[in-house]
Amino acid sequence: MTRDRTAALVVIGNEILSGKVVDTNSVFLAAQLHALGVSLRRIVVIPDETDVIADTIAAVMPAHDVVFTSGGVGPTHDDLTIAGLAQGLGRRVVHDQALLALLQRHFGEDVSGARLKMAEVVEGTELLADERMGFPTMQLENIFVLPGIPEIFREKVLSLRERLAVEPFFLRTIYSGAQESTLAEYLNRTLAEFPELLLGSYPKLNHPEYRVRITLESKDRAYLERAFSALLAMLPSDVVVRTE
Amino acid sequence: MTRDRTAALVVIGNEILSGKVVDTNSVFLAAQLHALGVSLRRIVVIPDETDVIADTIAAVMPAHDVVFTSGGVGPTHDDLTIAGLAQGLGRRVVHDQALLALLQRHFGEDVSGARLKMAEVVEGTELLADERMGFPTMQLENIFVLPGIPEIFREKVLSLRERLAVEPFFLRTIYSGAQESTLAEYLNRTLAEFPELLLGSYPKLNHPEYRVRITLESKDRAYLERAFSALLAMLPSDVVVRTE
Repeated sequence: MTRDRTAALVVIGNEILSGKVVDTNSVFLAAQLHALGVSLRRIVVIPDETDVIADTIAAVMPAHDVVFTSGGVGPTHDDLTIAGLAQGLGRRVVHDQALLALLQRHFGEDVSGARLKMAEVVEGTELLADERMGFPTMQLENIFVLPGIPEIFREKVLSLRERLAVEPFFLRTIYSGAQESTLAEYLNRTLAEFPELLLGSYPKLNHPEYRVRITLESKDRAYLERAFSALLAMLPSDVVVRTE
Repeated sequence: MTRDRTAALVVIGNEILSGKVVDTNSVFLAAQLHALGVSLRRIVVIPDETDVIADTIAAVMPAHDVVFTSGGVGPTHDDLTIAGLAQGLGRRVVHDQALLALLQRHFGEDVSGARLKMAEVVEGTELLADERMGFPTMQLENIFVLPGIPEIFREKVLSLRERLAVEPFFLRTIYSGAQESTLAEYLNRTLAEFPELLLGSYPKLNHPEYRVRITLESKDRAYLERAFSALLAMLPSDVVVRTE
């Protein structure tokens, strides 16, 4: 099996850490990346602080093939992602002429002070045209810098799909009425036989139909089907509610 | 102002990173900690892998006053939080006699194999009685080890509130019909005058009532009220929709 393409997501925002805003961007990106066959290895939520952003970026950037940031881009005092990226990479912040022209078209000539901040990029940033949204997407080395507003974040992720796709995972699911502690031995035996399998076990309280959802995944469809059949053959038939 | 009590949350689970399950524990804990006056400084979501859990714990534990883990405790192969904590702290995993007795009461004498795993703790773990749930909560130094199932996670957090409380934050909110780029200068001026203020600015697309929600917070109520009045006095009256 080829090595996975790995990803990390850095979510920047005090509003998430204080529980004032629900972070819906993480689950959206996670599901999209999974569907594209990219392994999201880490989500980190950090405050709007330049030093923390810089240190976090410096740590995750070399350890993953692709990094996404969510939030902290905009005109206000708490929009520190660009400053943090610059510090983390040891580069300067510059005004991008193409962004400046876009802002001037939008705001008229009154692009000064806080609005001027929206034209700031880290030196070496590439602007990716985005037909869906008009405003381009910033790519800095292996980092995609995305805004935190969920509607815009999602559009940006969708527009990046073709750049990111590798091979998808295939999925099989078994719903069981048995307790997780009863199933554990069968899962262990399956993994001993199929060590490359991604095997998940998710208990659900008070569900009318099942107690545990077991997921089997692989990028190799035949391998997945063999593992799925092996586990099903092993499980006592009265513990299986249904499969997908 | 006294130094904040800081916290980190480590969420352990492939199901979150693949987008199969929505992590609702983070926002619940974030809001609870904020209400208690504890500063949640970092949320990290990582896969079910012993080495990654160990490295993450070793990094966050000394940097925060309190650490919470969510998930990865249970009887199956992907429940690796205890093993990861042990490795991260350089300690052994042992069977706890009190947990073993509890499991025997629940399962009868048949506590072996995978079920025996549910009695495992890291050496030095303290078991906190939990009247709400019956099953005790594991505390290991400054780490609270919580299960990932949302209903149980929430009950555990609620039962820990008294141990965690410091002083709460006070909150004021301004809803504005102006664009964020128009407001930015006023926010900057407010922060220059009130550097200790926690000031947030959250644009909302397509909301019928407002465009930006501005939040002001402090543990010092008088300081908050002075900052709130100063900002309101500064803002053109036609940009304020309402305040809370």
